[in-house]
Amino acid sequence: MAVGWFYLSVLALCSLGSMCILSTIYWIWYWQGGFAWDGTVLMFNWHPVLMVTGMVVFYSAASLVYRLPQSWVGPKLPWKFGHAAMHLLAFILTVLGLHAVFDFHSHRKIPNLYSLHSWLGITTVFLFACQWFLGFAVFLLPWASVQLRSLLKPIHVFFGASVLSLAIASVISGINEKLFSSLKNGTNSYSRLPSEAVFANCSGMLVVVFGLLVLYILLASSWKRPELGMQAERQVWGFGLPFQVGVGPGLGKGHPVKTWALPGRPTQ
Amino acid sequence: MAVGWFYLSVLALCSLGSMCILSTIYWIWYWQGGFAWDGTVLMFNWHPVLMVTGMVVFYSAASLVYRLPQSWVGPKLPWKFGHAAMHLLAFILTVLGLHAVFDFHSHRKIPNLYSLHSWLGITTVFLFACQWFLGFAVFLLPWASVQLRSLLKPIHVFFGASVLSLAIASVISGINEKLFSSLKNGTNSYSRLPSEAVFANCSGMLVVVFGLLVLYILLASSWKRPELGMQAERQVWGFGLPFQVGVGPGLGKGHPVKTWALPGRPTQ
Repeated sequence: MAVGWFYLSVLALCSLGSMCILSTIYWIWYWQGGFAWDGTVLMFNWHPVLMVTGMVVFYSAASLVYRLPQSWVGPKLPWKFGHAAMHLLAFILTVLGLHAVFDFHSHRKIPNLYSLHSWLGITTVFLFACQWFLGFAVFLLPWASVQLRSLLKPIHVFFGASVLSLAIASVISGINEKLFSSLKNGTNSYSRLPSEAVFANCSGMLVVVFGLLVLYILLASSWKRPELGMQAERQVWGFGLPFQVGVGPGLGKGHPVKTWALPGRPTQ
Repeated sequence: MAVGWFYLSVLALCSLGSMCILSTIYWIWYWQGGFAWDGTVLMFNWHPVLMVTGMVVFYSAASLVYRLPQSWVGPKLPWKFGHAAMHLLAFILTVLGLHAVFDFHSHRKIPNLYSLHSWLGITTVFLFACQWFLGFAVFLLPWASVQLRSLLKPIHVFFGASVLSLAIASVISGINEKLFSSLKNGTNSYSRLPSEAVFANCSGMLVVVFGLLVLYILLASSWKRPELGMQAERQVWGFGLPFQVGVGPGLGKGHPVKTWALPGRPTQ
């Protein structure tokens, strides 16, 4: 039943995530003139698309890697690589999204980082970078002790969900800001809710629904890899490559699970 | 140790919450002309103050009632009343905050509910209202069965944290929108970061820090009332007044706790 709900949620997530990206592309392409990489406003147009794709949809997909039941069985290391690689891809898209807006500002002599949207956005990207480097250094490289991992995992998990929440707040304030600055005149003013405003507002609300569903799945304990794995597993190095001593989920039964847990759901 | 951390966090929360309210009042009073209840822009000025106070700070305080160790011992019913009453106060402040902006719009013939900020804000208030009525009907009135309460509690808990997250996103987009619309001219333009922009941006970031701390405490299981209480307790009616059969936290030891739980923290 829990697995059935999980795959139903995955289907809903894939649909919603695709819709978030496609609706942002359509908004920009249809109403804002499309895309270019030339320092004009068409370069700025990559910013909302890359931020929604990188900081929201790909970030969410990367965060949910350990919720796949397949990831619960056998060695955890390949899944860790997948988690880190997908987050790195999300981060690269995010940096490209930032580059698009900074380059546009630079060409147009517009100051950077003055609005609250930009302050929150750059803070979110900074936290994402810290989160990635902390995760890479402590959970992927083999030097960290089990104690250090246990100490840092709650911080890693909490800031994982927090970064996504802050990214959604940044996207909402960004779409709001863009519509206020581009819908100003007569029948096309934002307050008259022209079709662009309705479409872009709906895209923003879609991002919110997607984010809430991701957070629900992230925090629901029954969709997590049983926690005993983290206690028992240690990467070991052999033949010049890292291997991992892991435990299957069955071994975790009866062990007190100290993770985010949703009320009313069994933890294993 | 956990109790020490809890009270340190309560102190930080009280300070941060007060700073959120005071800094919003100061921003409006010093740079936006102060307050009135007369349909002018001075009436609109109540909107940010009442929304930050009601939807963020009072809402957070009401949500954290069950985290006080005092609430873990003895009957739960008085704490439920406190939880519901504080949320009602937060809701009243929120409605007053909405009234301030709707009345201002009505006097100035400005359309309502067109920006993404307003769409997200009104959705958040609607979810808050549903959340309060659901909580009142199911968890405070005595008719609901233990099974129904167990079924609905995860939804109540998840949407409790979600409403706060959405409120923070609404506040951020609202401050951003207000600064874009009021800082337009010459040396006072938003992009030149005049003192008002720096101050209001800092106030917005303060709300974010406050919200993250509240969410951390809300989701940390070691600061929760032991869960067995919910299973065993039922309100009973006598002398025309509701009473409650409750259990102390000591009785909960060893019982599997199925609530949000932060990794690395004991659940009881």
